[in-house]
Amino acid sequence: MRDFSSDHRWLSLNTATVRKQGDLIAIIDACARHGIRAIDPWRDQVAAVGLDRAVRAVHDAGLELSGYCRGGMFTADAAHRIEARDDNRRAVDEAKALGAPCIVLVVGGLPQYSRPGSVASKDIVAARTQVHDAIAEMLEYAREADMPLAIEPLHPAYAADRACVNSTKQALDICDQLDPERTGALGVALDVYHIWWDPELMPQIARAGKDRLLAFHVCDWLVPTKDILNDRGMMGDGVIDITSVRSAVEAQGFAGYSEIEIFSNDWWARPMDEVLRTCIARHRTVV
Amino acid sequence: MRDFSSDHRWLSLNTATVRKQGDLIAIIDACARHGIRAIDPWRDQVAAVGLDRAVRAVHDAGLELSGYCRGGMFTADAAHRIEARDDNRRAVDEAKALGAPCIVLVVGGLPQYSRPGSVASKDIVAARTQVHDAIAEMLEYAREADMPLAIEPLHPAYAADRACVNSTKQALDICDQLDPERTGALGVALDVYHIWWDPELMPQIARAGKDRLLAFHVCDWLVPTKDILNDRGMMGDGVIDITSVRSAVEAQGFAGYSEIEIFSNDWWARPMDEVLRTCIARHRTVV
Repeated sequence: MRDFSSDHRWLSLNTATVRKQGDLIAIIDACARHGIRAIDPWRDQVAAVGLDRAVRAVHDAGLELSGYCRGGMFTADAAHRIEARDDNRRAVDEAKALGAPCIVLVVGGLPQYSRPGSVASKDIVAARTQVHDAIAEMLEYAREADMPLAIEPLHPAYAADRACVNSTKQALDICDQLDPERTGALGVALDVYHIWWDPELMPQIARAGKDRLLAFHVCDWLVPTKDILNDRGMMGDGVIDITSVRSAVEAQGFAGYSEIEIFSNDWWARPMDEVLRTCIARHRTVV
Repeated sequence: MRDFSSDHRWLSLNTATVRKQGDLIAIIDACARHGIRAIDPWRDQVAAVGLDRAVRAVHDAGLELSGYCRGGMFTADAAHRIEARDDNRRAVDEAKALGAPCIVLVVGGLPQYSRPGSVASKDIVAARTQVHDAIAEMLEYAREADMPLAIEPLHPAYAADRACVNSTKQALDICDQLDPERTGALGVALDVYHIWWDPELMPQIARAGKDRLLAFHVCDWLVPTKDILNDRGMMGDGVIDITSVRSAVEAQGFAGYSEIEIFSNDWWARPMDEVLRTCIARHRTVV
């Protein structure tokens, strides 16, 4: 396993971590101040400053991207399916312009939450079938653009409203079905927050292998969790044995960024520089 | 599948559902008023009125039990392990006195939450090993008392603080290891709240079979969930296709109670009779 204790060369900042403290330009400036070399920006943050300006700012700062957040939300009723498809194609184009190595896919839960306005459903099996088919469709477009897709399994707490792919196994099953040759066009984004509880985690990481491990995200699970979406912890403040998961991922050959993504009302309320200083310290000590 | 639309013969009330509105005696009186024929009482509610009085009240009301909540919280450091063992033996004795058909086991998460005062750990793999060993030990005592143990897999949102058995597969793996002959001494308690999201749910229910299906609990998953423990929904108010799960369980031969267990700050704030009337109406229409 790589030694992170003496620098933060392999720290990437998911820009949602400080989304309340400033826009994407301000975040990129802060990364420069703190010697952070990579980010994973969100689409709404890019849109807020304009794609061209975002591309220039990333380039001028000499930043790499560790991903682009996010594509997906595939589940929709018939009336909203074209919208979902086109939206995902635009995500591919944006990721390409930004030089992202992959698009992170949050696949959507039940259609009424994934694409608001869709007819309500309780059929999670149907949602999963739709996700499979929509990824197959998006993959054709993404392959042409040479843009890998990284399916992110989300914690089962989000099965209804954010993603009905809830385990690494499920994500890898889709990869095996749609890209059996392991071309690199399809893989997974593993976030310790979503997967740490999974009894099958270690064998599934081994099954993924280097070809399928496109992104690795860290934060922590707090006890108690006060908000199901926005109370994620700074690494070291919760119960996840983060190092053991990173060790398993790196044992497969993963050598990319360790991306910090923290949705937290607490951390959003602190100054950006304090958050980044803390991220760097924890990256060196508990990641 | 049984038709529940015309009566509530197979409704059981988990007494936690109205724990804030009255003590166990008041709940038993309310069940009599509403023609509810079975309950699943919690140990603290029994202790609050005294075991002997609880036994008499259950008997005098002609109530059946659908389970006894709860044994478990097995994970502990060395200093707290004897306490955990003895506590679970007392649970067996109480369940026997009350005439319960099984004890529901919530197995515990990390030791510092399961048995407060235990040395903190982030090792969920070790916790799971400890759960396996402790169930094996409890099973010896429970077999002598002829008291079946029902392992309840809990939603992964509770993996840290309440139960590190988080899927039906995991619970059944323990059953197969400790009771390969399917004697009826060990099985599972399935609560739709905890398992509805699981992609492997249907095959695992089939794997369980009648022998292992000792209890069936219902409530609903609300979107958004405002509190990770105490914002469970009344059946029909959330996203779970409850009928499809009951259908699968009954297809295996399960013919017991459909037990309503709702931890909800909202429902705890309403009069007991209103809650029970709503439970009965929903039992007939959406369970």
